[in-house]
Formats: sequence, C-alpha cells, structure tokens
Amino acid sequence: MSVRERVRAAYHRIARVDRPEIWIDLRPEEDVLADAEKLEARRAAGESLPLYGKLAAVKGNIDVAGLPTTAACPEYAYSPAEDAPVVARLRAAGALILGTTNLDQFATGLVGTRSPHGAVRNAVDPAYVSGGSSSGSAVAVALGIADLALGTDTAGSGRVPAAFNGIVGLKPTRGLLPTTGVVPACASIDCVTVFARTVDEATAAFACLSEPRDLPVLNRPFRIGVPSELGALQDGWAEAFAAAARSYREAGAELVPVDISPFLAAARLLYEGAFVAERYSAVGEFIDAHPDAVDPAVRRIIGAAKDVPAHRLFSDLATLDGLSAEASAILSTVDCLLLPTTTEHPTIADVEADPLGVNARLGRFTNSTNLLNLSSLAVPAGTVGGLPFGVMLVGPAYADRILADVARSVPRRTRIAVVGAHLRGQPLNHELTSRGGRFVSAGPTAAEYRFYALDTVPPKPGLVRVASGGKPIEAEVWDLPLGGFGEFVAGVPAPLAIGKVRLADGSEVPGFVCEPGAVEGAQDITGYGGWLGYLSR
Amino acid sequence: MSVRERVRAAYHRIARVDRPEIWIDLRPEEDVLADAEKLEARRAAGESLPLYGKLAAVKGNIDVAGLPTTAACPEYAYSPAEDAPVVARLRAAGALILGTTNLDQFATGLVGTRSPHGAVRNAVDPAYVSGGSSSGSAVAVALGIADLALGTDTAGSGRVPAAFNGIVGLKPTRGLLPTTGVVPACASIDCVTVFARTVDEATAAFACLSEPRDLPVLNRPFRIGVPSELGALQDGWAEAFAAAARSYREAGAELVPVDISPFLAAARLLYEGAFVAERYSAVGEFIDAHPDAVDPAVRRIIGAAKDVPAHRLFSDLATLDGLSAEASAILSTVDCLLLPTTTEHPTIADVEADPLGVNARLGRFTNSTNLLNLSSLAVPAGTVGGLPFGVMLVGPAYADRILADVARSVPRRTRIAVVGAHLRGQPLNHELTSRGGRFVSAGPTAAEYRFYALDTVPPKPGLVRVASGGKPIEAEVWDLPLGGFGEFVAGVPAPLAIGKVRLADGSEVPGFVCEPGAVEGAQDITGYGGWLGYLSR
Repeated sequence: MSVRERVRAAYHRIARVDRPEIWIDLRPEEDVLADAEKLEARRAAGESLPLYGKLAAVKGNIDVAGLPTTAACPEYAYSPAEDAPVVARLRAAGALILGTTNLDQFATGLVGTRSPHGAVRNAVDPAYVSGGSSSGSAVAVALGIADLALGTDTAGSGRVPAAFNGIVGLKPTRGLLPTTGVVPACASIDCVTVFARTVDEATAAFACLSEPRDLPVLNRPFRIGVPSELGALQDGWAEAFAAAARSYREAGAELVPVDISPFLAAARLLYEGAFVAERYSAVGEFIDAHPDAVDPAVRRIIGAAKDVPAHRLFSDLATLDGLSAEASAILSTVDCLLLPTTTEHPTIADVEADPLGVNARLGRFTNSTNLLNLSSLAVPAGTVGGLPFGVMLVGPAYADRILADVARSVPRRTRIAVVGAHLRGQPLNHELTSRGGRFVSAGPTAAEYRFYALDTVPPKPGLVRVASGGKPIEAEVWDLPLGGFGEFVAGVPAPLAIGKVRLADGSEVPGFVCEPGAVEGAQDITGYGGWLGYLSR
Repeated sequence: MSVRERVRAAYHRIARVDRPEIWIDLRPEEDVLADAEKLEARRAAGESLPLYGKLAAVKGNIDVAGLPTTAACPEYAYSPAEDAPVVARLRAAGALILGTTNLDQFATGLVGTRSPHGAVRNAVDPAYVSGGSSSGSAVAVALGIADLALGTDTAGSGRVPAAFNGIVGLKPTRGLLPTTGVVPACASIDCVTVFARTVDEATAAFACLSEPRDLPVLNRPFRIGVPSELGALQDGWAEAFAAAARSYREAGAELVPVDISPFLAAARLLYEGAFVAERYSAVGEFIDAHPDAVDPAVRRIIGAAKDVPAHRLFSDLATLDGLSAEASAILSTVDCLLLPTTTEHPTIADVEADPLGVNARLGRFTNSTNLLNLSSLAVPAGTVGGLPFGVMLVGPAYADRILADVARSVPRRTRIAVVGAHLRGQPLNHELTSRGGRFVSAGPTAAEYRFYALDTVPPKPGLVRVASGGKPIEAEVWDLPLGGFGEFVAGVPAPLAIGKVRLADGSEVPGFVCEPGAVEGAQDITGYGGWLGYLSR
C-alpha cells in the first residue's frame, strides 16, 4: 500500500469509528495527501526516512505549524510560527501529522474527561474513560488510526492512557525529548512521550526524536524490583499484576521484593504539596482572567495553587530530597521496578461522580516518576474483565534503553486448543514446544462438537461445531508467544485451520477447526470422546 | 509442561526424527531427567535461572564432563575432567545438556559431511548438506529437539549451518566466550557460537555465556553496508538477498553500497595462505601418527599445512594488516554489513563429487570474519525453492549487541489471503494495516470455491473449497509481521478461521476459511465472483 493509500485508509477509519472527541484539529485529508506526495518524492530522492509513512497524532498542547495550540482551552489558543522540535523531528524522519488531539485541559488530569471537546471514550469500551491527560493521542493509536502519537507526561499523562487502551507509553528520561513548543504544566518536570502499539515502534520513534546520546544497556539477565505491598487495586488487578511479574521471571529476570513507600510518598507530594504551584506559574494568570473558559476541575486544582507559600515549597523540596535518596538506594539494588501503571479503571460516570478523588487515586504509581527524575515505560499486560491491564517499568534516569529491553524480553502470548496430532506425546507436539509453547490444561470442549478422522498424513482429526447432537471432545490448551503462534498458524495445512474452539466452561480460545469439505465421507469418531481414545481403539 | 516432561518430549522427538548422525554421544534420557529433577529443586530454592529448562546440545569439540571429547575422531578422544567454561555457564543458568553433536572432523569444513559418524543431513531436505562444521548442533535446533546449541566458528562453522537449516547463528566477538576446553582449529581466531531459533533466544544465551562487559548500542536508525558486487550465487539467491536488504530499509535502516573486496581477499587468505598452518599446530602430530583415523579431506587440508614456511606467514600477516585497515575504513562508514551467509546450497552428492571445491566456495563471505576480528550474526531470511536462505550481519569487534538490534528491527512476515471485510476500503481492513500489514496483490483464487454470505456483524463472507462446481473468487493477498499475524488470528471470531487458500497460480497461502456449520442455510453468492461484487449488487 502506498503512503497515499494509507492516508486514505486512515481517514476512512476516522469516519467509521465516529469518535470526534479524539481530535481538536484534524487536518483535511487532502492536506495530508499532499504531504504524502512530497514524502514519496523525498523517498524517491534517496533520503533516509526511518519513520517513512508512519501516521502520527500530536497532543493539542504541542506546537504544530499551521494548527492552533489550544491545550484544550479554545480561548487560550495561539498560532505557533513553527513546529515544536519533537514535531519537526517526526516530520524529518518521514512521519505524516494527522492533527492535534484532545487532552485533559492544560494537561491537568489522568482521566481524559476534562475537556470542552468532550470526554474521550475508551478505545475498548466507550463507557470507560480513556485516561489522560493525553487522551486523544492514546485512543487514536489504540483504534488503529495513527501508528504513533505524541503525548506529554507530568504526573502520568503519557502512561495511564496507554494502560487503559492497551498500548505502549514511553516516557523518556527528562531532557531527552525537548519540551520547547509545549504548553507547560510543571515546566521543570514535564516530558514529551510516545504512544505506539508495540515497544519496537515506540523505541523506533524515540530514536528519531531524542537528542543523540548513547544510552546504557545490560548484557546479562535483568533484576526487577517488585513491590512487596501495592495497596488497594481494582478487583482482579493484583492477580493480573502477579501474572505479569511471573512472565518476566519466566523470561529470565530475577524478581526482587522492594519497599516502594518512598515512591508513593513522593507521588503524594506532587498534588498534595507545593509543587502544584508550578502549574499556576504556567497558566494561572490566564485562568484568573478567563475563569469561564476553564474546566471546573482544572480551575479548582490550578486556582488553589495560587496561594501556596514559597516556604512550603522549600520544605517540600527538602522532603523530596530525602525521598529521592531513598528511592535511589532502592533502584541501585535492581535494574528497574515493575508496577501496575495505575490502580483502577473508572467509567466516565465514576469520574463525573467524583472528579478529583478518582483522579488522585489513578496517579499512585505514576506521580513520583518525574519528580524523582526517572525513566518509565508503560506496556500492555493482558486484560481483566475484557478491559486492558497495563504494567509499568520504572528505572533511573537514562535507563530508557534498558526498560525497552526488559519489556521486549517478555513475548506477548496467546492460548490455543489442540485436539489431535499436537497433543502431548503425539507426532506434531514439537511444533508447539519448539515455538515456546507451554501446556496449560487438559479437559473437554463444550458439548457442541462432532469429531472426524480425516484422511491426512500424519492422521489428524477434524473438530466440527454443530447446532445439535454435539458432544464434548477431549482437548489440551497450550499457550504460545504471538510470533510463534503466527508462525505455527502460517504452517497449518489444509483442510485444517485455526478458528475458535469453545471449551466446557463456555470460553472460546483459538484452536483447530476444519474446512467443510474435509469431513465429507470421513469417519465420525465422536463416540471415542477424543483423539487418544480413538487411537487406542 | 514441567522440565521433566520437556525432556521426555525431546527424547520422543529424537526417536521419531531418526537422525542418528546428529549425535556423537547422546546422554541417556534418565540421566537428563535426573538433572531436570535437580534443576527443579534449584528453582524451588529460589535460584535465578535465566535459561531454566532450556535443552542444549554441545558440539563434539567442546568439553562436557562425563562424555568423551572426540572432535569427530574417535581415536583422538579424551575424557575431560570438567566442563568447558561455556558448558558450565549453560548449566549454571539452568540449561540441560542433551549430549555432544557431530561435526566436520576437527572443525575442518563448512559442509557437515566430513565425519566418521556420517554426513549430517539437512533439517529441511535430507538430500542436502546441513552445512558445517557445527552440523549436528544446528540440525538439533532446527528440528526442534534442542532449544539452544553450542558450535564453534573459525571460517564460518557457526553460521553456514545456521543459514542452511533456517536458524540463527550468533558468532560473538573473539574473547567474549572463552574457548578453554575447546579442541582448537586455529586457536588464535576460534570462537564459540550459539545456535537458536530466534535472535532473542540466541542473545539470552549469549548474555549468560559471555564475560560480563557493557557492549555498545545505537540510539538512532541503523546504517547498513550492502555489497555493490557479490559474485556468483546460486539461482534465486541474489533476488532473495535484495529482498532481505529491502526489508531492512523498510524497517528504517539506511542502505549504503560498499566495496567488500578487502573482506573477500582476507577470506581467501584463510585457506590459500599460511594461516592454515595453525590447524597443523593443533592436531597435525596426531594426524601424522593416525592417518587412517582421519577423514581424507581433513587429512589433506591439515596435512598440507605442515610444510608452510614461517616466512610466508610473516608475508600473509603483513597482507592481512593492510586488508584489515581497508576493512576498518569501510566499517567506519556504516554500523554493519549485510551479506548472504554463503554462496550456494549443495546436496550431499555435490559435496561427494567435489569435496574441496564446494567447501571453498561456501566460505566466501564467512572466512574473513575471525581473521579480521569482527562480530557476526547469521539469521534466516526466507526460503528459495523450499530451502532456507540466510543472511549475515558483520560488524566491528564488540558490535554484538548492535547486530542483534539490527536483526530484530526486521520482523519475520507471512502472507494472508482475505476475501471479505478485510479487503481495502472494507470495515475491518484496519485490522491488517494497524498490525503492519502491506497490500501485496489482488486477484482470483483457484477455481475451487463456493462463496456464502454469512450471518455476522459486520457482514462477512465464507469461502468454502469444494471438490467440484467451484469458481474463482476475488481475493487480496496481504503481508503481515508474524507477531501481528498471530495477534490477528487470535482475534478472528467463529465461524471464521485461518487455514490455507489456494490462489489462481496454484500456490497456497494462509487465509480465511470457515467452519462447516456456518454455511448451512447461508446464501450462496458465488455468482457475484467476490465480496465487492456482492456488495454492489
């Protein structure tokens, strides 16, 4: 597909998903197509374009030449003379800018609902929040519209929405991505962040956006600190976090229990202490002059910051120094921490009912990262109750490459149900084990199947779901890395195929089915209850 | 699956593949099971085991305590008192040793046929050579018996068999893996190497085997040198190499044409010059004393090295110095070179007909690597005529991490045929594009299908292969990274499934089929010739 075809497909998709709240200013399709044509010419001229044809969205608090910068406050808008350096670098590397995205106004919030452009609905379930403040950028990537998006992160705005939408949020060490041309929240600790669907895509963009600098890597197994105490989490999240930690250990890392209380204490300082006054320095005078232009929750938070006395800031700085020393001591014993990205996933109604309380809880694990000058990477870690669950790696400054390597050490996995030659001890079982397959469980399918002996070499069965007269068939569930699963599926010969198999508990997992023609004239072996029963007949 | 179950499965597989020539000494299954039990106890005691339960094979010229070291010459055998350090590190990291593997005797050869234990047959097509000298190790991994295997590499012995069997061969910078306990070939340039099925698995093992040392990485797009002139290659290999180079460019690398003549000249020095005398230093006296114990080709090569005068070595060293300076100058303009791993894939009969000539040609690209003190990584790059084709990255000393990152930047891909809602412009097309999908071609399937409108949301068709009365149906072929393909397949809802679709040219590609029950009562829309025809009815 040419770059222009990709642009057309993206606008087609934008129209189809009907999520207008993602965008503050979506560029006209013809303008992006014109950019695509120029890009194709640059490529033809031999220019090196590492992000060639990638479609990118930019959070509405970052300058994009030709579009107003509003920070989701139309009255605040200004027309930037030029791109922010991060945007210019995206374009130089071959990315195309689709437009500017919605955010919690002035990047104040972790919810994604505090905007005159509307609450940004979650990519997976629109009743839930997208997370914020980089709400539109995260959802544009999660819905497959943009390949990459820029966000910002002061308290967690580049990571919480990644977790809620099942994508990757890369929050680099402060200073690696310039914040020139970004509306400040807390200017001394703000970071530009990258959203992408995979760690590889996020790090490829980061490499193009970052100041050139060698970052350390480790040539040995990782040591990962895991909190000995997490505090209250949404139902099912503690188990999901434990499973994520286990997957890192299975990938070769050593897990080390750590006490994260200094990180939690520093997190509380960000909003409960004097540091919030920096937000008033950034936009307080504007808010005082235009109170009606501002979201009530944002006004309340930033307005209250006006009266914080400077002596309290000195006192908080001293407290932070102490916490920083404690945090460094903990980080010196490990390569990074593994944490849940956030604490719970609220619905939009939950946030409306308690705008400040919910928001405050969401920042428990993220709020301290920038105050303590740390690097962080938020990555998907499966789902809980059908919604994405995310974890976060946190390391010292300049551990950005190490965090990416740690994240990549754990392959994403899927389950697969097998009923014949891939069962344990059968001739093709090695096709699972040699691709990193792990046995999960053995048990029957739902009582909805007929089972046939097919005319194949080696002999294989065909599993056919029927509307009536079905029986349970003995199956094994295995678990494979997605890449190995893809390789496995690509090699499955006709008439077999990988579709969905319903298990006895009603759940559906990917598994072996077969084409209709295969069972014509084949022996019905349903009565044996399974392949091993048939083989030992 | 427990480690013990994995061991049992491996021995089951060893019996089933019937390739006895892989092994020199295969350990008894019960001994490996006893090791597995001890390993499970170490894990239970909390020991960090990054290679926990990985099954490993060790080339027969590397000391494994309890087994003879023979270098594929039974008369040369000795019983090592202890493991070579690389073997000890494998065990310390949690790997289990299955046994020692066959090789071109005294690691002299790139073919895999020069052994009293028999020619090692290729993993994919047994009429072809496995490549050597690390023949058994490579085939044990390629056949899914071992997860990892150790080889050695002087002239290419750790890379040529990786290319011929479709796996990864990691040849580290000299000195990073100790060669203590390894029968020398050319002691000053020998390297221990790692075979695995993926770059990630190879680098994980490398991290456990290597001397601890920080290796550089690059935080920017890669610059890859590609030869402006390759010389004669097997039919189809130049095209396959060009396709591989293109995939690196598409992954963001800049390709730079380079003149590799200094590398080719250094390669010729290895066997045509005086350096081969180092092989005589290693085992010449043994060969002189036991001529009948030695493979004729090996005897001829090493025997001839006895009379090389020292003045010729001085002269070759001076020549190598000059070539080394030229090679360094070329490598200083790029991050690494991309080369075909070897020149052609001979059958076992080809090698029997011309044992020395074929072998000499195979080393064109690999022979210079160790003489010039370079790092290298051989990776699969698709197939040509059904046999694996491999390429090789070559970088300066200590570029090992960079080579792995370059190799990982290119995802392995597969094709997929779509016929309905995933066609361009249709509602689910984004499920391909958002996973890195690229449109390849549009055209009809083979004239073997009936086509049905299924009762799904959004509306989708069902493609059913029939024995007679079939018609061609319009399809699109797309191309996806394997991981994205796996994720895509895992999300395909019943009654659809991914099996094989036959195209008009007779080829079969993965693609959409459906379960038998889905088409009962569904409208037959074959007459429209395709989904778009039906939609515009």
